[in-house]
Amino acid sequence: MDNIIKLGVIGLGNRGYGLIVCELLKLPQFYKITAVCDVYSDRIDRAVNSVEEATGTKPYATDDYKELLKRDDVDAVLIASAWEKHIPIAIDALKAKKIVAMEVGGAYSVDDCFKLVRTQEETETPFMFLENCCYGERETMLIDMVKKGLFGKVVACSGAYAHDLREEITSGAENRHYRLRNYLSRNCENYPTHELGPLAQILNINRGNRMVSLVSMASASYGLEEYVKRTKAPDHPLQGKRFMQGDIVTTIIKCALGETITLELGTTLPRYYTRKPTVCGTKAYYSGDSDSLYLEDRFGDDVACCWIESNLGNARELSKEFNTETWKSFKLNPEGGHGGMDRLMLIDFAECVLQCKPFPIDVYDAASWMSISALSEESIAKGSMPVSIPDFTNGKWITRQENI
Amino acid sequence: MDNIIKLGVIGLGNRGYGLIVCELLKLPQFYKITAVCDVYSDRIDRAVNSVEEATGTKPYATDDYKELLKRDDVDAVLIASAWEKHIPIAIDALKAKKIVAMEVGGAYSVDDCFKLVRTQEETETPFMFLENCCYGERETMLIDMVKKGLFGKVVACSGAYAHDLREEITSGAENRHYRLRNYLSRNCENYPTHELGPLAQILNINRGNRMVSLVSMASASYGLEEYVKRTKAPDHPLQGKRFMQGDIVTTIIKCALGETITLELGTTLPRYYTRKPTVCGTKAYYSGDSDSLYLEDRFGDDVACCWIESNLGNARELSKEFNTETWKSFKLNPEGGHGGMDRLMLIDFAECVLQCKPFPIDVYDAASWMSISALSEESIAKGSMPVSIPDFTNGKWITRQENI
Repeated sequence: MDNIIKLGVIGLGNRGYGLIVCELLKLPQFYKITAVCDVYSDRIDRAVNSVEEATGTKPYATDDYKELLKRDDVDAVLIASAWEKHIPIAIDALKAKKIVAMEVGGAYSVDDCFKLVRTQEETETPFMFLENCCYGERETMLIDMVKKGLFGKVVACSGAYAHDLREEITSGAENRHYRLRNYLSRNCENYPTHELGPLAQILNINRGNRMVSLVSMASASYGLEEYVKRTKAPDHPLQGKRFMQGDIVTTIIKCALGETITLELGTTLPRYYTRKPTVCGTKAYYSGDSDSLYLEDRFGDDVACCWIESNLGNARELSKEFNTETWKSFKLNPEGGHGGMDRLMLIDFAECVLQCKPFPIDVYDAASWMSISALSEESIAKGSMPVSIPDFTNGKWITRQENI
Repeated sequence: MDNIIKLGVIGLGNRGYGLIVCELLKLPQFYKITAVCDVYSDRIDRAVNSVEEATGTKPYATDDYKELLKRDDVDAVLIASAWEKHIPIAIDALKAKKIVAMEVGGAYSVDDCFKLVRTQEETETPFMFLENCCYGERETMLIDMVKKGLFGKVVACSGAYAHDLREEITSGAENRHYRLRNYLSRNCENYPTHELGPLAQILNINRGNRMVSLVSMASASYGLEEYVKRTKAPDHPLQGKRFMQGDIVTTIIKCALGETITLELGTTLPRYYTRKPTVCGTKAYYSGDSDSLYLEDRFGDDVACCWIESNLGNARELSKEFNTETWKSFKLNPEGGHGGMDRLMLIDFAECVLQCKPFPIDVYDAASWMSISALSEESIAKGSMPVSIPDFTNGKWITRQENI
């Protein structure tokens, strides 16, 4: 592999193109973009031009990802297509023996998740799930603190994908965004992995622990309809349309060792962005919403009601002490998209590939984290009945070792 | 009634005694404490002495509340007993035609809640549920803002009872606290009303809306066992005891008009106190955990990821603008327990009694809010199955008017 990864990028929308321009082209020591693919020719042209401008060489371009998968000058593929195509493309890539880096999203069926797992097991092709939030500053700090025992036994976690996407969703017809059709037709925790991924790592999911069941409840849907009415032209095709997606979806997951994980999806109401990773342990508590870190050993075990008033956001200061070494040095020279998470993730992917190390986020993680979407859809459809979460590892979770 | 309420106080533990000393004796224009009752004689003595010291008159004292209920010099009773006795004592008081002010707690059965409702309906004796958090500064601000339309349509709410009670619970044998036996034996959302009450008022529960179903999930129980091991003597009777109460209990409630309410109980792990009332509307968002208020009209509808970084805790400042008139003037002269909530609540109770106005929190609110404990216990026992929440108003919720 010449110590450089010859990469094909499949899916050149906002995410795929953004990763090329902001990250991959800035990591020439790791990546050479040899091929790009999208179903839209204008996106292909934009990506080809950017690669050529930066490197002097035009990548191969196609609108058929299966052609890209046949090429010898592609070692690995990065899949950043519409949600619906992530797993099908990944399965074809694994069969073609291309190392897979697959962008995040939720699954549409448990069956699809199992297919992904079985294909990876049969082909033994390396697979990594690109959950960038597992590389976030606060998230890595929390994971590190938990592994060091500073939280004691972690009993419960929660997180959110709170992101006002009303404009992105309702411009879906013009910007060809896959979210629109999903919000019109489905009702589920459609994007669980940004908050779930880091929490799953904290709880050693698929490595000594696993998620066993969930319940999910969706609120009514008001946000998008009101937004369309208020902001779009009277003859806009979305006027008066009903969206099936509830505004707030809450999901509670039970783990094998008794821990719970609560997820909130909120993307269709006005609010500020937050993933609010929250960790409740027997020795410490961190709230991602208030960015406050309460350590019993440090603050005592008799906390007056007013503690938070004078400590709101104290993790900003405490992070100087508790950040990982990676983030401490990274902050000296911050760059890259999404606050540096993307950069760190793509460096990690490259190093694992080039040094033949196992990926920190593998096919079992992808399948179990993504399955939450399909399973929450089932629970909601059944009036919030509990549904079981399959064991995608087929029992291997009991003995698999922590790898981060 | 001579424009003063002759009050009997039943239950003289921390809460009952605290209300006498910190509130009732400081409101002589409204209350005369004519009788007190507890099963422990030392508690009776303490209360009698305090009342005599403040007023020069000894109140009647008894260890049998039924004797207190027979007395002509008692117009109303305030019930602050152990949780298990709230409803039975209230029912006897209603039958004895004593106006009832009942302290909060969760119910042990739906049947008990129905009995309370039917008794109040049959006797027509006035009944108020003393949920002091409905008088909290942030809570009243939110209720007021919602009623004024500043949140648009409220679609989802959440709240918590996050309060480190490990010392109180595990000292239960010495301090005769009812929480200990509950935590040893039950597993449920045992104290829902502090966070639920204000959210129910926001969503017009029992006045045009109602709670129809819930699911509840409990984490494993680690906190108390570890706390006992670490802080109590090796021969303490609680050493090695298993507590049935899960450390974190999450409950999601569905309302008739499609809104959801998420509750978190967290009382057995180290953490700071918060009720984090959170309101998601089509025009605004408030997070009680971060005390941040996002108003679309004010901050625009394109909120960058970093908005919260510079606006964390901004409600502290915005409350100067949005607080209720009551709280604005109250803050000029703050006094009373629990940040003034108790004072405002007991003034409100007295004014309703003396002016023969309906109580803002009535028997239907008490029954429906308290029933969440029994119903969450059922859901947890059934592996988080959804359970329906009875309509305690028997259909009256559809036409009952908002009263706050």
